[in-house]
Amino acid sequence: MFEIVKNGNVTSAKGFIAGATYAGIKSFSEDALDIAILASEKPASVAGTFTTNKVVSPSVTVTKSRVESGVSMGVVANSGCANACVGSQGFKDAEEMAALASKQINAPEHKMLVCSTGLIGVELPMALVRQHMGNIHLDSDAGSSFARAIMTTDTMSKEIAVSIKIGEKEVVIGGAAKGAGMIHPNMATMLAFISTDARIEPNTLKSFLKHSVKESFNMIDIDGDQSTNDTVLLFANGMSGVSFDDDDSVESRIFKEALTYVCVELAKAIVRDGEGSNRLIEVFVRGANSGIDAKKAAREIVSSTLVKAMVHGLDPNWGRIMMALGKSEVDFEEDNVDVFISGIHVVHGGCSIPYLADAVVSSMNAPEVKFEVDLNAGNFYARAWGCDLTEEYVTFNSAYST
Amino acid sequence: MFEIVKNGNVTSAKGFIAGATYAGIKSFSEDALDIAILASEKPASVAGTFTTNKVVSPSVTVTKSRVESGVSMGVVANSGCANACVGSQGFKDAEEMAALASKQINAPEHKMLVCSTGLIGVELPMALVRQHMGNIHLDSDAGSSFARAIMTTDTMSKEIAVSIKIGEKEVVIGGAAKGAGMIHPNMATMLAFISTDARIEPNTLKSFLKHSVKESFNMIDIDGDQSTNDTVLLFANGMSGVSFDDDDSVESRIFKEALTYVCVELAKAIVRDGEGSNRLIEVFVRGANSGIDAKKAAREIVSSTLVKAMVHGLDPNWGRIMMALGKSEVDFEEDNVDVFISGIHVVHGGCSIPYLADAVVSSMNAPEVKFEVDLNAGNFYARAWGCDLTEEYVTFNSAYST
Repeated sequence: MFEIVKNGNVTSAKGFIAGATYAGIKSFSEDALDIAILASEKPASVAGTFTTNKVVSPSVTVTKSRVESGVSMGVVANSGCANACVGSQGFKDAEEMAALASKQINAPEHKMLVCSTGLIGVELPMALVRQHMGNIHLDSDAGSSFARAIMTTDTMSKEIAVSIKIGEKEVVIGGAAKGAGMIHPNMATMLAFISTDARIEPNTLKSFLKHSVKESFNMIDIDGDQSTNDTVLLFANGMSGVSFDDDDSVESRIFKEALTYVCVELAKAIVRDGEGSNRLIEVFVRGANSGIDAKKAAREIVSSTLVKAMVHGLDPNWGRIMMALGKSEVDFEEDNVDVFISGIHVVHGGCSIPYLADAVVSSMNAPEVKFEVDLNAGNFYARAWGCDLTEEYVTFNSAYST
Repeated sequence: MFEIVKNGNVTSAKGFIAGATYAGIKSFSEDALDIAILASEKPASVAGTFTTNKVVSPSVTVTKSRVESGVSMGVVANSGCANACVGSQGFKDAEEMAALASKQINAPEHKMLVCSTGLIGVELPMALVRQHMGNIHLDSDAGSSFARAIMTTDTMSKEIAVSIKIGEKEVVIGGAAKGAGMIHPNMATMLAFISTDARIEPNTLKSFLKHSVKESFNMIDIDGDQSTNDTVLLFANGMSGVSFDDDDSVESRIFKEALTYVCVELAKAIVRDGEGSNRLIEVFVRGANSGIDAKKAAREIVSSTLVKAMVHGLDPNWGRIMMALGKSEVDFEEDNVDVFISGIHVVHGGCSIPYLADAVVSSMNAPEVKFEVDLNAGNFYARAWGCDLTEEYVTFNSAYST
């Protein structure tokens, strides 16, 4: 079907180049890259999904409107400043930053998109942006610099690429993301950039992206909050010479599966790196009456503060899973529920069954903890991912701006 | 209007008696009261509001159905065991516990209500309940024992009473509550018992209680989770000789205000005692287009994990308030928003205004921190209460059952 590209990243697909620079927005340290450009050598189809928060960064507003044309040459992203809650100056700055970046790749300025991430309520230091943008030189080896430059509280960069063989030809999908705090379903404080050399019409691209985001970025939770800047962008420049349509062909299905895989892996990397997080939680809900019910239940469980805390403490307190499930407003009978913790059956027919408590505790002492819930009501299932809640999360978020 | 009764509690109103015993459900220590009865000397009108969680304790189911008759003689409550997720045995145990308690006051067993709080998934140790129920002797001085007996992770008991003068006569409203973990809007892991010697018809009582709960228990948040056992019960035995109707008379309005005051004070006491909490957060949203909008926005801000963490860290990171507001889906324009932290104006027209950061930090270093948000969109307002998120909350909830 598809293969993971070794050391793959956002410039692994044909015709994508990137570059980054230090500008002093994020840190005093000159090692800290904080402005980066990702570009396609040829105009690419583009699709995006954006935060649903009503308070939104002008960087998002500008990009959202430019994505509507369906064609783009690339995106410039800065870290350290969210360019949000700064009034009309934020629009001017977003547009100027895009214009400065477009000069680096000789593109029309309205074909350049813009993303920002960092502190809310302070203006972009445009003097620094103007001074340093010219230092960015783009090439196809700089995918990893791009991934590093978009990091804020992330402790590691997040990137991946997969390759699909279609006859004699190869199609690549690459991606980079940043995440950490404020991650919640329905788009979180996160940026993700995905590039492919497939040829896909903008409307089809939009529908592919929407589907993949629903199964990945919308199914993760760190702390239930949602940012003003969340953006996922997908570029398709066609340079592999392989086209995909919005049909049910084997090829399209493989492409969609590979795209979802890239999104899920980036989403899981974001959660794994949640602020102060030690463990990834995967919740698998099956036996639901509808796909919506399955997603709702999985998300509710993975978002529960008490469930997150019990994972941190290796405490098999399955009552909290039942409580979160009950709160999710999905269709099920309490008396039909089964619960498994890391494969060990702990609840049958809605009641506790005898299990070795120590064995469950040991099974939870792992980098990934899995909760499986069978509603025994229907045939739909869904997966959601979250991280444990630790003392470090609180310490970290008690002192972010000051 | 009304006065606070010194050392007032749930038996301050005429004709209410209580008693409590140790039964060994909650703790080995014989000081730990864990079963308690509150009763009225005469049959009382009763109203209740209950958890909306789909996974619900049989104690709630039994009580909910008995409240429908509108008349009750009292309630028995146990702490230490939630009597939830235990299958049909839970119904038998809830009914038997009520029956045993009804004998202590010579009431018909279906006139006795039942509440449970504690760990989910374990059966009530009925052998202990049978053995110890007979130790409960009720009198009008034992209101505080009742409040202590319902505590679980609470660090202090929560009780209050107010008195209203109506002509020559006096009407008293008393209350007791327990709370701590899993507190969220729309009824939380909490029990509250309110008693009054006013005479009020069951339907009127229901409407009074619904209104007061909306402004109080439904406007608090500790960690966004909701329990299987939440119950608020209001008894009115008429022994003051004063009646109130569901009309717009001055007397009815004073009674409703006093009842809401009792509910708000109990709700705030619950939040103040949230697990690991150091500070009470009050969010006051005004200028909303509707009461629903005002409530929604206030609740969203007070529920944000990042807002809670910033209060713990005395960090005036108002961007998080804007973020939570934006996520609340209420009607407002970002450019019209004002924000005040403990009375200090920090945001005007959606943008930061110059303020002394140190002064804001000092103002937050208090037992109660107030965030005021003016949407400048309409004339509606609402208040919500929450607590800060601390390292202690996480430590505590990482090791609850084990």
